[in-house]
Amino acid sequence: MGTLVLLRHGESVWNAKGLFTGWVDVDLSATGEEEARRGGDLLKDAGVRPDVVHTSLLVRAIRTANLALENADLSWLPVERSWRLNERHYGALQGKDKAQTREEYGEDQFMIWRRSYDTPPPVIADDDTYSQVGDRRYSQLPSELMPRTECLKDVLERALPYWYDSIVPELAAGSTVLVVAHGNSLRALVKHLDGVSDEEIAGLNIPTGIPLRYDLDDNFHPTNPGGTYLDPEAAKAAIQAVANQGKK
Amino acid sequence: MGTLVLLRHGESVWNAKGLFTGWVDVDLSATGEEEARRGGDLLKDAGVRPDVVHTSLLVRAIRTANLALENADLSWLPVERSWRLNERHYGALQGKDKAQTREEYGEDQFMIWRRSYDTPPPVIADDDTYSQVGDRRYSQLPSELMPRTECLKDVLERALPYWYDSIVPELAAGSTVLVVAHGNSLRALVKHLDGVSDEEIAGLNIPTGIPLRYDLDDNFHPTNPGGTYLDPEAAKAAIQAVANQGKK
Repeated sequence: MGTLVLLRHGESVWNAKGLFTGWVDVDLSATGEEEARRGGDLLKDAGVRPDVVHTSLLVRAIRTANLALENADLSWLPVERSWRLNERHYGALQGKDKAQTREEYGEDQFMIWRRSYDTPPPVIADDDTYSQVGDRRYSQLPSELMPRTECLKDVLERALPYWYDSIVPELAAGSTVLVVAHGNSLRALVKHLDGVSDEEIAGLNIPTGIPLRYDLDDNFHPTNPGGTYLDPEAAKAAIQAVANQGKK
Repeated sequence: MGTLVLLRHGESVWNAKGLFTGWVDVDLSATGEEEARRGGDLLKDAGVRPDVVHTSLLVRAIRTANLALENADLSWLPVERSWRLNERHYGALQGKDKAQTREEYGEDQFMIWRRSYDTPPPVIADDDTYSQVGDRRYSQLPSELMPRTECLKDVLERALPYWYDSIVPELAAGSTVLVVAHGNSLRALVKHLDGVSDEEIAGLNIPTGIPLRYDLDDNFHPTNPGGTYLDPEAAKAAIQAVANQGKK
């Protein structure tokens, strides 16, 4: 019943600087652009040909999609975008240095904020420089829907309606669906697809720029649990690198 | 009742080489990429903020939209694509050198093929290198709908359903709608909007990379006939350059 391909955006300027990003609209770094293009090459070389692409509303995912599709000769694909695929909102941590935060609050608190399934960081103030309240792209979100911080559970809850209403119908039609999004919105989808427990999801990292293919059965469950990376060796190495992120 | 902004893609690799392009999917040249980014700068500087973007299925229009929107900080806009916004299909002339064609067939025939309202070039064979029959992006077009050559009248007739069904409803909702397309698909829209006669449309050229704004009344007719270029001086100079295209 269709094929799902997940692609996490390449390195952003703030990834490179070690800052918490969340919903702050930071562009790709030159390295991130290269990762995106390589993601497109991997699709093309593997003969994986999406019929439609979904992105978040954040430029680092959108440009990753654009660059990957250019390299795959698929710029013409229909595209849909949704805030429901956005990165986890990092609350008051947005714009803060990861290593400094670790030092200031200690390893335990730092890891809770980064990896706890159901404990969000402190709420961001609406007048904070890094708040997205007032951003025109979210003007159709009523205030009660606009995140001011999120844990992974929150991300899963706001992503699932999009999965069920926008992606599943395309899979049901037999399409190959490409979703270009973020570390945490993709972890949320993977948690749902693979039935990963609340505890185990903390240790699951998705590498950037390497398409992850899921072949789905009639119930939209993977016939290849855990999915299949189009470059398994590179994925293995990258997963280790992500696990080290934020360490001094 | 809404604002329409037309943007013609920047120079393509084949524009630069002087070849008939039509539906052949040729990418932007470096100059074309710069034109696209400048188009985005013009939108931003003029405070024109589209709510939605429409493109053809051809990469030179899609990348023009992507690059312009990046520079205008609008990458997140919803986007729709349609073959109905594609460039005029140039029939058997696709892939041919413009200057050579002029020499071989003479000025009169050359100008009929380039500018006649209702005389299309010869039909392209389905097995021609430059035919688009079999291209996956057109797989949902029944054979009888797939163009094998087009005059401007044909372009207008296939573009109007998209205008009425996809663009007008957005304008009716008060949106600012950006259409990124091609010399001839935009000339067709302008012919319709401004009520240009079949004869006069031959002399009307739309410059590349300069957004053209139309403010529309309750009947979706322009309150500023002819539209308003966001850089009028550059538009004037560019219109002259386009008129000289194909001359030795």
